[in-house]
Amino acid sequence: MTRDFTSNLSLRQYDFTTNSKDNVDMIKKVPTFYANQLQKLRLDKSIPTSELISKLGIVSNPRSGLVNWSKTGLLIQNKINNIIRKNLDSIGFEELNLSLLSYKTNWEKTGRWNQPEIFKLKNDDFLLVPTCEEEITAYVKQNLESYKQLPLKFYQINPKFRNEKRPRGGLLRGKEFLMKDAYSFDINKSKAMETYNSIFESYHKIFKEIGLPYVKAEADSGDIGGDLSHEWHYLNETGEDTVFTCDNCGQVSNQEKTLAYPSKEYTSGDVSVKYFITDDDSTLICAYYPSNRILEPNFLKLEMPDINLKSPFNEQELLDKFAKESEEDLSKRVVRIMDSRLNSRSNFPDFPINFVNRSMITTLTDIPIVLSEEGEICGECEEGTLQKSNAIEIGHTFYLGDKYSKALDLKIDIPVENQVETKNVLMGCFGIGISRIIAAIAEINRDEKGLRWPRSITPWEITIVETTKNPEFQSVYEDLELVDYRLDDRKDISLGKKINQSNLLGIPLVLILGKKFPIVEIEVRGKRNTKNPKWKQLDFKWEVEYDSNGNDIKHYVHKDQLNQVLNRLLLDM
Amino acid sequence: MTRDFTSNLSLRQYDFTTNSKDNVDMIKKVPTFYANQLQKLRLDKSIPTSELISKLGIVSNPRSGLVNWSKTGLLIQNKINNIIRKNLDSIGFEELNLSLLSYKTNWEKTGRWNQPEIFKLKNDDFLLVPTCEEEITAYVKQNLESYKQLPLKFYQINPKFRNEKRPRGGLLRGKEFLMKDAYSFDINKSKAMETYNSIFESYHKIFKEIGLPYVKAEADSGDIGGDLSHEWHYLNETGEDTVFTCDNCGQVSNQEKTLAYPSKEYTSGDVSVKYFITDDDSTLICAYYPSNRILEPNFLKLEMPDINLKSPFNEQELLDKFAKESEEDLSKRVVRIMDSRLNSRSNFPDFPINFVNRSMITTLTDIPIVLSEEGEICGECEEGTLQKSNAIEIGHTFYLGDKYSKALDLKIDIPVENQVETKNVLMGCFGIGISRIIAAIAEINRDEKGLRWPRSITPWEITIVETTKNPEFQSVYEDLELVDYRLDDRKDISLGKKINQSNLLGIPLVLILGKKFPIVEIEVRGKRNTKNPKWKQLDFKWEVEYDSNGNDIKHYVHKDQLNQVLNRLLLDM
Repeated sequence: MTRDFTSNLSLRQYDFTTNSKDNVDMIKKVPTFYANQLQKLRLDKSIPTSELISKLGIVSNPRSGLVNWSKTGLLIQNKINNIIRKNLDSIGFEELNLSLLSYKTNWEKTGRWNQPEIFKLKNDDFLLVPTCEEEITAYVKQNLESYKQLPLKFYQINPKFRNEKRPRGGLLRGKEFLMKDAYSFDINKSKAMETYNSIFESYHKIFKEIGLPYVKAEADSGDIGGDLSHEWHYLNETGEDTVFTCDNCGQVSNQEKTLAYPSKEYTSGDVSVKYFITDDDSTLICAYYPSNRILEPNFLKLEMPDINLKSPFNEQELLDKFAKESEEDLSKRVVRIMDSRLNSRSNFPDFPINFVNRSMITTLTDIPIVLSEEGEICGECEEGTLQKSNAIEIGHTFYLGDKYSKALDLKIDIPVENQVETKNVLMGCFGIGISRIIAAIAEINRDEKGLRWPRSITPWEITIVETTKNPEFQSVYEDLELVDYRLDDRKDISLGKKINQSNLLGIPLVLILGKKFPIVEIEVRGKRNTKNPKWKQLDFKWEVEYDSNGNDIKHYVHKDQLNQVLNRLLLDM
Repeated sequence: MTRDFTSNLSLRQYDFTTNSKDNVDMIKKVPTFYANQLQKLRLDKSIPTSELISKLGIVSNPRSGLVNWSKTGLLIQNKINNIIRKNLDSIGFEELNLSLLSYKTNWEKTGRWNQPEIFKLKNDDFLLVPTCEEEITAYVKQNLESYKQLPLKFYQINPKFRNEKRPRGGLLRGKEFLMKDAYSFDINKSKAMETYNSIFESYHKIFKEIGLPYVKAEADSGDIGGDLSHEWHYLNETGEDTVFTCDNCGQVSNQEKTLAYPSKEYTSGDVSVKYFITDDDSTLICAYYPSNRILEPNFLKLEMPDINLKSPFNEQELLDKFAKESEEDLSKRVVRIMDSRLNSRSNFPDFPINFVNRSMITTLTDIPIVLSEEGEICGECEEGTLQKSNAIEIGHTFYLGDKYSKALDLKIDIPVENQVETKNVLMGCFGIGISRIIAAIAEINRDEKGLRWPRSITPWEITIVETTKNPEFQSVYEDLELVDYRLDDRKDISLGKKINQSNLLGIPLVLILGKKFPIVEIEVRGKRNTKNPKWKQLDFKWEVEYDSNGNDIKHYVHKDQLNQVLNRLLLDM
């Protein structure tokens, strides 16, 4: 018999030393609390996905934001973890595991000790790690002896913690979540960019291997810091993030990074203004924008890099402030920035200060400074139209530069033209939210029949049920020995219920061994990602049943051809 | 070529989907920070093992009691984890992962919220789990629908936390440590005992597979509770626990559980006394024991089950107490318990109360009530002599009974003779300290050359170094493809240093590919656990070098016989 299974996944977690048979058998058992709460539940589309995940026994939430993972959940985790491991290992990242507790000193040095949503211990000395920039920097500092050791690249896959006030959807946003966080240390910026780009390639491979469509979006660096960052998203209407896509140049960016110009039809009405000063207090910046839009101060910074973003005043505050200033200070330079959506017909408010030297006023027009909206013109190519989508963030990459190495004094002597210079190591950090990927895929792929896992991360690829006893079935199990199946041999549960529960859990295929043996029935549940399925290319025939939409839903295959057909069916899922 | 390697361990963590080659290569790389701090260190026997573990880059301690695990450390962890998984899966335990945070309510119900050494979060609502009896009981309660689901058996391998005031030895006693904790739920006591016994067998298999001599000792249940418990120990002079072994019946128990009778030579001198009352306040218990020994109140409880152990008085307190009592209360029953080490020649103190009714006094003699000492007579067989050893606790098994199911109201309807009775589920819990095993084995197996891992948990079985370049070496790597080796191809590091570092790290074998090829040199570092090594049974000959004690230290083997020799060498390590 031909054997061409290409996947042999979760078994391996338990596959070791001399004899792994016992453990393979264990994997193939239906977990203890599998689906036992579903009997109280009438399944329909209105059940939240998080509830389905929980009732199916994949995870449970002992308390909002906290998660217990069952065996089924661990099998899904392991598949994602191994996809990540393979791809990061291949670009030279090394796995480690940092402590989940971290002492305050380094967090005070980086200014992150008093961030909101940090879980601190009762004595106020330790926190539960939300990410590990501080710890990994200290770890490298402790061990780095020469620039020749650079680049250094590490990753870990373990729990992270955030005192989330509004935990959401069981796994989607939790107080405790499983994350892959990777960190890189390079000798200079061009090397750091090489590392950043290698992570890009790796992320593309990881998300392609998982199999769901994703986007990479330019992003703001936020609390983590640094000056270059990208987010990785699944687009889905339930997502809480927003990304814009240009239908011309394909640029994708999240809302805080998307610059746009107004569409032709745009007419502006009332105009609002906010006032800022520069870091050196020399210049007053007046930002004018449509009153019905939201000013994005980071966009102002692109135009005026030394703007103090903490300084927005409204008119009254501006007057109060200037009233306190001496005569000399009133001779500030003034820059007026007009949002692109404004024109001469807009209703500008009066400038509230009369005593400014008019010759000191500069006016910049047609600068996009508000959050974009769907249908506006892409600020990148200035031609395409922006589409707006909800998105679920599943990964984030940051070039951190010296933000952490400076604060924590991680530096190294580097030879530069016969001299030695002591420089801060340049860092990057790269996250993937594993528990969130599981929640997102469950949400995106589900339908009225329940969950549907892509083959890459399904806890099992096949459920097997027997409707009768026949010693010849043994030959099927022997053929499947290395395959990722589970045998549902629970008693007191009907065949129909077993098949329903397998479909509900989202296992791609159900294999039914019954009276028609050696003909075996395969029921298809998995989602196809192609219109030209590979099973149609096999050069032998068997009976196939189709639904009214022309989708194959059942296959009746002779046991001698079973392996080949199963393999081909799975290849497209 | 014959291939009979029986072990194929850590590779599997990374071995999945279509092509695992990249990852295998990654495993085979020398970790980044491997041994790079050793150059500052002169190795001698006085270096604490914990420092060696840290300088070798297995773990590092960002702060006392906290641990960062490097890749090397993770490889060791994984091997132990997989030995545990295999054995627990095979007796029907199912893996899961409970939340590391737990809310206070259930801990208040079980009376454990205010235990010392609990890490609480700042808001005083959550703790970091030290063990998970509360959470697993709640988890089962949430899902248990019928007694038919029993028995239920779960385990997890993940971090635990304890606010340890005196962290010790890097891994030996930490604030954060890796533990396997397993929990069982049974319908009645006989079933619970079956489960308890199956865990015994499983623990024996696990510790045998790891390969170091261990003992199982009767133990006190302590804070966890329950009425039956055993500890699993490695005997070692650095251990902080104490166990006694009988040289006749083989009984092993820890100090708090060891009953003994005095040896023939024993002569007692001064006698001390402590006074207790019973729970119902009806009886005064006077415990007499040698002044130079330590009274163990739990031993009194064996004789007087209703003794109130919180009630010991000294003479003054007793007089004070009795002075406050009314005339009636003075007619308490009095039980005098004499330790076995006392006799009529001992210097008994006067009984301080004159007004007790003498007819109410009972005297029990020859009861062991003090902690035993080496050389005393075993209380179990009453024949053998007790040996005292220091020990490192690596596992603990408890039969919990209904302690947690009662407090957390986990009960189920059970049919008993046509009636239905609602009963508390009976529990057991079973721990293995994984990080502590690593620390203990490092300590026990080390010698003047450094660490020595048993083959079962070594991060790699073989280090390969090349002293010259030769394209024919490739055939060796192809033969070893599935073997757990690493290639030390670091530049700027001498052959001698590479071999030293491999020996220091405790890798069982070093394989040297050099100018003598196709003869390959194997240097032996691993510890043999037999006097009749299996390599001597092979039916072909090769050159072997011995040290002055007759131990084989080097083997010179033709490449075509390499696999067989390596395999045989490893089998005894």
